[in-house]
Amino acid sequence: MAITVVGSVAYDSIETPAGRRERCLGGAATYFSLAASFFTDVRVIAVVGEDFGPEQDAVFQKRNIDIRGIERAPGKSFFWEGSYLDNLNEAKTHTTDLNVFALFEPKIPESYRDSEFLFLANIDPVLQRRVREAMPDVKLVAGDTMNYWIKDHKPALLEVLKGLDILLINDTEARMLAGNNNLVQAARAVMAMGPSSLVIKHGEYGATLFHKTGPKGESVERTFKAPALPLEEVVDPTGAGDSFAGGFFGYLASQPEPTPAVYRRAMFYGSVMGSFAVQRFGTERIAELSRKEIDDRFTQFRELTHLD
Amino acid sequence: MAITVVGSVAYDSIETPAGRRERCLGGAATYFSLAASFFTDVRVIAVVGEDFGPEQDAVFQKRNIDIRGIERAPGKSFFWEGSYLDNLNEAKTHTTDLNVFALFEPKIPESYRDSEFLFLANIDPVLQRRVREAMPDVKLVAGDTMNYWIKDHKPALLEVLKGLDILLINDTEARMLAGNNNLVQAARAVMAMGPSSLVIKHGEYGATLFHKTGPKGESVERTFKAPALPLEEVVDPTGAGDSFAGGFFGYLASQPEPTPAVYRRAMFYGSVMGSFAVQRFGTERIAELSRKEIDDRFTQFRELTHLD
Repeated sequence: MAITVVGSVAYDSIETPAGRRERCLGGAATYFSLAASFFTDVRVIAVVGEDFGPEQDAVFQKRNIDIRGIERAPGKSFFWEGSYLDNLNEAKTHTTDLNVFALFEPKIPESYRDSEFLFLANIDPVLQRRVREAMPDVKLVAGDTMNYWIKDHKPALLEVLKGLDILLINDTEARMLAGNNNLVQAARAVMAMGPSSLVIKHGEYGATLFHKTGPKGESVERTFKAPALPLEEVVDPTGAGDSFAGGFFGYLASQPEPTPAVYRRAMFYGSVMGSFAVQRFGTERIAELSRKEIDDRFTQFRELTHLD
Repeated sequence: MAITVVGSVAYDSIETPAGRRERCLGGAATYFSLAASFFTDVRVIAVVGEDFGPEQDAVFQKRNIDIRGIERAPGKSFFWEGSYLDNLNEAKTHTTDLNVFALFEPKIPESYRDSEFLFLANIDPVLQRRVREAMPDVKLVAGDTMNYWIKDHKPALLEVLKGLDILLINDTEARMLAGNNNLVQAARAVMAMGPSSLVIKHGEYGATLFHKTGPKGESVERTFKAPALPLEEVVDPTGAGDSFAGGFFGYLASQPEPTPAVYRRAMFYGSVMGSFAVQRFGTERIAELSRKEIDDRFTQFRELTHLD
């Protein structure tokens, strides 16, 4: 089943202990759609500037991603510059130029309307909500956010959360959103805001799924942990979380029913895609994968955690 | 097979967000031996002062732990005072009074000599080495250490590492010992110092086993991850790492052969015992467990990580 994703498509300049890249293709919707494209059809809603060329389009087209919803606007594309010199777990942002995103009005192509899955990548919650409301018939909605929106745009974000089935955030964001340092208590508080499933990403320590299943009123709480792959070199952490989301939600969308077992495997596929994303700069690795590489690494993850 | 453990038996005064306890029974060898006692016979080598009474002895005796090697010396027992008010992951030490430990000369009772397993809990590496050399015939030796010894007593510690099969330390200690921030590279560097197995504990994120198996020269490197249990309340983190070590090494000692599958289950039993330790103050929970509670929680850990 097809996924529509709304979020940033951007240029990133990135510095890590492994080197530096200028203006490489980036953005949450880019990483998400590339990762999800190995599992199902993906359609992107975003805006880019006049500096966005056929070379960038080609990265999506090669993965059969529908980019008819990427609008071209006068001006420059969203630009982010950051470094991970002291800490590979947290980016230091040097520049965020919203550019064409400052005036973005998401438009949903007619051909996207039958998407059954919707992903609201990390952008202004006002835009997330608008897209959510414009697609009322989707079967499953997931989303992401970041500290900036939690801190300074909480009322708008709370409106978005009411319309989400699944929220994917990291430890710090979960604690901040709930105002509670205990992760289990924080998870419960966040789920009371709307989403019946919550994925908390722990960077190099993997991710935890908190999950209510079964009919409302008699639903059961479950918890599941996916590891991260111990890697000898992390070249560039940019996009790891978005690639996790793409693997996770892409796999969910590829299955006939989102059973608890499907959710567990989706967590592993999320970790798998996150582990590939960080092994090269930008989208270099994630754009060039094969399904066999993905499934081989899935097996490696199983061996990493399974007793028998 | 029996384990001999050398390490501290002490009084701890502890403050956490859940409350405060004055002078409760503590020390690395205490937590280790209580946790290991659910799996195999345990014998303790330590020193206590005149303030150590029959009530404290009874905690060990109730678990059938051999304390003939706990020497009584003139003076006071080792005393530690610490708090976890800002951060449950890291103790803030207020007082460390070595007291009788300052002049401790470990003596190994004749009845301990046939122990096949030896655990060198976190104490001065000079003492760890002395006990190791006094028991040359043991089958498997594991040990722990801490930042203080890594920073200021590294040459003595390196001598201990040469005689270890298994080292158990936390993330920060592994990075500090190797002088390398990447955990996989750090693990390789630490294993080059002696131990063929390394358990790196990540607190609330579980633990990773790095493990060389097979005959020397053609050994295979394996990695295995055990989760931590997501807990709604951590009452007191004191002794979690030592309880992990007790569950891990106790289970290993209880099995006929330390195969890779046995190591994996040992990692889970380590996590199980760590998860119990933090649920009450001091040794309150770990001293009162039943084997059934332990095995039920083992099942819970399996459900937390297994796909099928």
